[in-house]
Amino acid sequence: MSLSRELAKRVVSLDPASFDPEAVKWARNAIADMIGCTLLGAPTETTEASLMPGIYGPGPCLLLGRKERLGMLDAAFVNGTAGHALDYDDTSKSLSGHPTVIIIPGLLALAEATGASGKDLTDAYIIGVEAATRFARGVNFQHYEKGWHPTATLGIFGAAVAASVMLKSDEAQIADAISISASLASGIKANFGTSTKPLHAGIAARNGLFAALMAAKGVNGSPVALEHPQGFLEVFNGAGNYDADRMLLNWAEPLDLLAPGISIKKYPCVYSVHGAIDAAIQLHDGPLPDSSAVADVLVRMHPRRLLPHVRNPATSALNAKFSLPYSVSRALVNGAVLLDHFEDAALHDPEVTRVMGLIRMEPHDDDANDYGAEVVVTLKDGTVLRQSVAAPLGRGPETPLPQDMLEAKFTDCARATLTDDGAAQVFALLMRLDALPRATDLTDAIQAATR
Amino acid sequence: MSLSRELAKRVVSLDPASFDPEAVKWARNAIADMIGCTLLGAPTETTEASLMPGIYGPGPCLLLGRKERLGMLDAAFVNGTAGHALDYDDTSKSLSGHPTVIIIPGLLALAEATGASGKDLTDAYIIGVEAATRFARGVNFQHYEKGWHPTATLGIFGAAVAASVMLKSDEAQIADAISISASLASGIKANFGTSTKPLHAGIAARNGLFAALMAAKGVNGSPVALEHPQGFLEVFNGAGNYDADRMLLNWAEPLDLLAPGISIKKYPCVYSVHGAIDAAIQLHDGPLPDSSAVADVLVRMHPRRLLPHVRNPATSALNAKFSLPYSVSRALVNGAVLLDHFEDAALHDPEVTRVMGLIRMEPHDDDANDYGAEVVVTLKDGTVLRQSVAAPLGRGPETPLPQDMLEAKFTDCARATLTDDGAAQVFALLMRLDALPRATDLTDAIQAATR
Repeated sequence: MSLSRELAKRVVSLDPASFDPEAVKWARNAIADMIGCTLLGAPTETTEASLMPGIYGPGPCLLLGRKERLGMLDAAFVNGTAGHALDYDDTSKSLSGHPTVIIIPGLLALAEATGASGKDLTDAYIIGVEAATRFARGVNFQHYEKGWHPTATLGIFGAAVAASVMLKSDEAQIADAISISASLASGIKANFGTSTKPLHAGIAARNGLFAALMAAKGVNGSPVALEHPQGFLEVFNGAGNYDADRMLLNWAEPLDLLAPGISIKKYPCVYSVHGAIDAAIQLHDGPLPDSSAVADVLVRMHPRRLLPHVRNPATSALNAKFSLPYSVSRALVNGAVLLDHFEDAALHDPEVTRVMGLIRMEPHDDDANDYGAEVVVTLKDGTVLRQSVAAPLGRGPETPLPQDMLEAKFTDCARATLTDDGAAQVFALLMRLDALPRATDLTDAIQAATR
Repeated sequence: MSLSRELAKRVVSLDPASFDPEAVKWARNAIADMIGCTLLGAPTETTEASLMPGIYGPGPCLLLGRKERLGMLDAAFVNGTAGHALDYDDTSKSLSGHPTVIIIPGLLALAEATGASGKDLTDAYIIGVEAATRFARGVNFQHYEKGWHPTATLGIFGAAVAASVMLKSDEAQIADAISISASLASGIKANFGTSTKPLHAGIAARNGLFAALMAAKGVNGSPVALEHPQGFLEVFNGAGNYDADRMLLNWAEPLDLLAPGISIKKYPCVYSVHGAIDAAIQLHDGPLPDSSAVADVLVRMHPRRLLPHVRNPATSALNAKFSLPYSVSRALVNGAVLLDHFEDAALHDPEVTRVMGLIRMEPHDDDANDYGAEVVVTLKDGTVLRQSVAAPLGRGPETPLPQDMLEAKFTDCARATLTDDGAAQVFALLMRLDALPRATDLTDAIQAATR
């Protein structure tokens, strides 16, 4: 049997009735967080650019945080772009990327167009995450290291599977959706730090839904589109850099959403630097007298996190989101890293710029601690302050973001486009998403709450 | 200066007033042939599947061979898919793929939406071909051999540049369109022989136009999206498998459209096998008494043409288009390889099946003769008949398809969707395309001629 078909077989064998309630809760939280990020990203320049008046036609699918409704593919694209515009959305260790922003925009649009329920949406999301992450286990970490942006290049497989589940596609159609996705996957890390990165998410969200729709209409891909000598595995990863067997192992035992789980971001910047920010905030809130006393800062992180694009100082609002020196400097100066700090106006704060210039970075080699970080601050009087963090808050099931912080983040994000009352009502609906008779109950409420 | 910017600089330095009239003639012929292929592909199953009623909105851009008009991105996608549905469209040696089907669908849609002239269309096309093929010279033949489908993965750069030229984008915007395209390129050869292959063309045509529109709206890509360690060259080709300098050399000296030029297909199947078909038809029309006398057939071709997917016998109408045994067998039995031969009903002709079973294939190692072929037929009485072809008819400027054969092919294709009179009128318009005040003069005529 072909690899696409083997994957499809595992997809159809997943029974939502057997899902652990804890997984359903994670799904609800992740979807709520995603909607919040999209409401925040809706008025950004990149989302505005993606709209292109006169090019799309009207349809039943809401652009979150706006009043327009478009056809499902275009809505998936615009919402996917908005959802990733601020890089504040959740991440998955298995995927080495952002799972929800690729899966939810297409599912939500499809649910609106087909009248699917909140439970349909939640179930398809859980299955989509399982598919994307099992797939990713076969090609990561090599896939990420080579320069692909797995959010897009692997997330598309989750989006295609999730949409296929909602479409009630059969095993053969799901296999075709996977094989078609192998010819649509794209996105390179060289474009990190530019407005093309959020487009990766929008395009992949659209393409995953597109692959599912095409397969459901009878378009076929090669049964061996993954394992062929000129197939996805060889072409994207290369010989010796993948293990297809790992894609097929232990589906849902347990669900990847539970172990290793996903991480919901507390800070609106690249996830790699969250541990260092936590440590810096602990120093700010603890022994550090005042940032003006700082003479030297050493940050130690795993080399997988301390990549070249992370080491750069901030020069624009967009690349500030990837800049470890900027975020750690902010944390030491302000004891917080907030949305406002990534506005252009905030970048040139003189004290932040001063501290940013003092930051040195060193890789550590502890593989068991690959999201941990140590921040060592030397004061002008020679005092040395050290703080280590094993895993940032929000890092998966071990350190989940407390529910009140999840709601506070949603409210902070949603107020970019919703009324305060509306945001509260929408969050309440999201917390019982799987009980909503129709997904449109949610999007209608979002539209009504939009300022 | 960055590579994207260096490429953009060369794009803006091209002056249409200096184009050799011979290049304009090739552009006219290639566009005419492309329109013919699209009119032929419009009613195919893959194109029908790509339409998805209710998902796109209406717009000003005609779906060729149909009566609907859509927004420009969706029209580029559907027309691109239709244009490649039968694999009958032109090819470029520099690109190792099909240049026109990626560039023209977006340009035509953009021209309709903006009121551009026939000359604007022709000039932008010539520049788009130059950009795609110079780009390709830096990454081929390795790019093709690795398993990418260059029609899509390299063609997109030509489409993005061509659309940028029509949009009158400046050098910086063109550089961004190129960098954005580096994150949209996709399409793998494992999906050859399935209905996903024509989708590659439609998606790349859409994405190239999309990249140009995004860049024109201020979306930026990385200036080093091509040469970055995690940029297009390293990620798609890999270290040691490209030469970026070759991308920048000798633009328009002469135009790639003139040397090595493009090939306009005479037979509705993969270009690799055209030389062998020509040789087999010469045997049929010459010394071969009757196919029933054939006992053995040996075909010798360059290994770059004799790829695994070409060696397979035909099992479906789609993979028959890639099957050397099928096409050569048809040529020996019928003395012709026609559109009708790739209908399902034609596949099971007993005599063709018998001869197909007699065909053996051997690679030759003459690099100077890489599109040539030799067919050696041994008859039941032991007679050996040999025919060699150095280059198939239609192979670039050395063996151009005569103008009457170009028109005959157009008419044969267009009759799938146009009236006979209408087809003749449209061909006449195409032959003076660069004199038309508006590109819509052409598409309005096509719509009026559609049955």
